[in-house]
Amino acid sequence: MDKTRPIGLFDSGFGGLTVMKEIARHLPSEHLVYFGDTAHLPYGNKSPQAVLEYALNNASFLLKQNIKLLIIPCHTACCHALETLKSKLPIPVVGVTEPGIELLKQSTRSWRIAILGTTSTIQSGIYQSLILQQNQKATLFPTACPLFVPLVEEGLFDHPSAHLIAEHYLAFLKDKQIDSALLACTHYPLLKTTIQDVLGPAVKLIEPAEICAIQTREILLRSNLLNVAAQAPRYQFFASDDPDKFKRFAPLFFGSEIDSVERISIL
Amino acid sequence: MDKTRPIGLFDSGFGGLTVMKEIARHLPSEHLVYFGDTAHLPYGNKSPQAVLEYALNNASFLLKQNIKLLIIPCHTACCHALETLKSKLPIPVVGVTEPGIELLKQSTRSWRIAILGTTSTIQSGIYQSLILQQNQKATLFPTACPLFVPLVEEGLFDHPSAHLIAEHYLAFLKDKQIDSALLACTHYPLLKTTIQDVLGPAVKLIEPAEICAIQTREILLRSNLLNVAAQAPRYQFFASDDPDKFKRFAPLFFGSEIDSVERISIL
Repeated sequence: MDKTRPIGLFDSGFGGLTVMKEIARHLPSEHLVYFGDTAHLPYGNKSPQAVLEYALNNASFLLKQNIKLLIIPCHTACCHALETLKSKLPIPVVGVTEPGIELLKQSTRSWRIAILGTTSTIQSGIYQSLILQQNQKATLFPTACPLFVPLVEEGLFDHPSAHLIAEHYLAFLKDKQIDSALLACTHYPLLKTTIQDVLGPAVKLIEPAEICAIQTREILLRSNLLNVAAQAPRYQFFASDDPDKFKRFAPLFFGSEIDSVERISIL
Repeated sequence: MDKTRPIGLFDSGFGGLTVMKEIARHLPSEHLVYFGDTAHLPYGNKSPQAVLEYALNNASFLLKQNIKLLIIPCHTACCHALETLKSKLPIPVVGVTEPGIELLKQSTRSWRIAILGTTSTIQSGIYQSLILQQNQKATLFPTACPLFVPLVEEGLFDHPSAHLIAEHYLAFLKDKQIDSALLACTHYPLLKTTIQDVLGPAVKLIEPAEICAIQTREILLRSNLLNVAAQAPRYQFFASDDPDKFKRFAPLFFGSEIDSVERISIL
């Protein structure tokens, strides 16, 4: 297989760009194609069936871009579609669930763990069962925090309202002696300071973005797919709704400006 | 035309049920069909093209339900699709924009007016130009409040964070001597107490739901379409995503439980 083919990523919107940033940092020679399904954003309050349908459409679009590997940086999409895509697609598929669990294993001592995610992620029960597969005696506190995504998208990370809302969702965790909290949504790391304030300094916040990039590198190496060409990588961005808005929001998550975004209709 | 045919309503989700409630109150003999396009919810942060496309699909589904009149209780959909639907559909189409303007004309003295709506509604400029058509000298303060919808959907009407977020959006209006604020989103009346607190008791909050029902009654009368049969009305609910979630959320907006919701896929 041609190693210069791009890696594909899809997300409901912008959050997955935090993972793309890590991929770009750890795999600086790889071409990347990102698709943000902004017409259906957010996934976090949609049904499992809807999210699976969107994920299949997104993957099919990226396959047409000739990708050699697919990364799903969206936790909600991983919960509802990762296994299906792994079994259906002719290329390797990498999610953020397994990297998250890997990091959690390294972090926790007490196995008293909070899982913070969208309503859809928490209701899927996927993280709960993956953690219990590692340790049947784990004590889990799955916690849906639906307002975190719109707060981040409004840029209110440090606003007093963000603190009150974090208290609203997380205050009950204070006396639960957790030692780790999995940030199971790509938007949540942007509220890290606020979440840490509420949970206290003893709780380790787990962000899977970087380890996802490291695992992707290993998979490419193992599959003999790593692009070792020294040329500058090409980054392409597609969105299913307003490309201008995508371009405006992207730097918040990607850490730098992006050149151009193409709107495509995939229903 | 058969007067017993139902009236149709569509919205991105649940908010339009506040208007349906008024329709049911003022037109107690009419059969009603409500479609919530929850697969694409929320419309408030989608592009004009996307909202127009969804609106055309929603209307086409409701036409197949043999409706005699279409109500669009969603302000964002009205801003981007009302004129197109009025010109394309073979039946009367009623929006919430004109009823809102009508009520505003009755309320304002100073014509210093705040328009509170979703990003998409505010960016469309529709309300601004409709008000300026009434009075060229009106002084307008169009204000997007994107977090109001998720706050309402989380049930945090009276939470201190709702007050802080309302302050964040609306504090600049305090010294602007406005006498009216148009609540140009079906979710906002649920935050009325908080909004009134921030704006002060001198500002009249304009909610178009009831006058929309009254205007619909007049149109039905004029078109000789009013259902005068004495039988109990039939209310049908459809949603493009999870019907159980729809059923759970509906009472918050409709004011009473609903029997059943059918999921339909309309892309």
